[in-house]
Amino acid sequence: MAKGEDTRHAILSRAFELATVVGVSGLSIGRLAEATGLSKSGLFAHFGSKEALEVAVVEEASRQFVQDVMVPALREPRGLPRVRALFDRWLAWGIRPGGCFFVAASAELDDRPGPPRDALVQASKDWIDELTKAAQIAIRESHFRTDLDAAQFAFEEYGIMLVTHSFHRFIREPDALDRSHRAFERLLDTALVPGYRAR
Amino acid sequence: MAKGEDTRHAILSRAFELATVVGVSGLSIGRLAEATGLSKSGLFAHFGSKEALEVAVVEEASRQFVQDVMVPALREPRGLPRVRALFDRWLAWGIRPGGCFFVAASAELDDRPGPPRDALVQASKDWIDELTKAAQIAIRESHFRTDLDAAQFAFEEYGIMLVTHSFHRFIREPDALDRSHRAFERLLDTALVPGYRAR
Repeated sequence: MAKGEDTRHAILSRAFELATVVGVSGLSIGRLAEATGLSKSGLFAHFGSKEALEVAVVEEASRQFVQDVMVPALREPRGLPRVRALFDRWLAWGIRPGGCFFVAASAELDDRPGPPRDALVQASKDWIDELTKAAQIAIRESHFRTDLDAAQFAFEEYGIMLVTHSFHRFIREPDALDRSHRAFERLLDTALVPGYRAR
Repeated sequence: MAKGEDTRHAILSRAFELATVVGVSGLSIGRLAEATGLSKSGLFAHFGSKEALEVAVVEEASRQFVQDVMVPALREPRGLPRVRALFDRWLAWGIRPGGCFFVAASAELDDRPGPPRDALVQASKDWIDELTKAAQIAIRESHFRTDLDAAQFAFEEYGIMLVTHSFHRFIREPDALDRSHRAFERLLDTALVPGYRAR
């Protein structure tokens, strides 16, 4: 049982790496067999279909995102420190060599209804909910204004993340990260209780 | 000569439509032959290679973008009206049924160096330059503050465009456009000369 779980986990890690290169649609059981050295029939036994493999890869990406971005950020104190940590951790995730899996996969699956797209939309919603929740907590901690619309804050924060990804990875603008930090500080300025300036 | 131009233009329009469905990479001379009813050899005579076809499609997308978004916006009075028009026209472009060609193609060509990617990066830079220029003019017209960083304004404006596209098209959040307008008004608030409130 434990060994089966380990194997599945090792396969999914490899499938996730592969998907960041060839895309979710470019992933196939045949390609994964080559990459892992396992048999196609063995992989079919694990996943059942290409679609199920795609869903599993989106879930693996979400698992890694939770582990690399959310868990460390949620260890930070409630309020502004946690809001900052979520942004900073995302930045580190988004500017990795392969870029953000979710940005690439969203564009790819945009027009392809089905379970893989649904899993990806759910992952995006979970992330936006987490950003919204962190802003709501910052309101309760008296770091953010009580009249702040936390969901609007999350929307604008997510926009800064997307443009940072585009400027850094696609356009390769050297000042992308600098602009990103300035945009985020400006957004914070409109959210913070006047006078509140602790880091 | 004129007829050759018309034919090329008709082919490119069809190729652009096709690319919004199958992606830039999914476009092939064979597929385009099916879609246009022209022979593969005739299409090869027009484009020479799949790569040249891809570049031509990116240029066709840019041409349509200039025609649908930039030209009408640049007819608006200099300053705030033109800044608003660029945003509103982009919105109309981005939320069309096929979504924004450039957003989809950027994710697709991100990791594929070569002339098609170069053409796409150039189109994105041209657009960001246009947004920057409009903000600079708004400063000169005394609508925006003289200490505004116009390139930073364009960066943040572009972020609102990207998150609007994602919320509207991918996540399908019903309040995407409402949030988009509110984010843009908030960005304008930080840019406008205090007291300047004309629409």
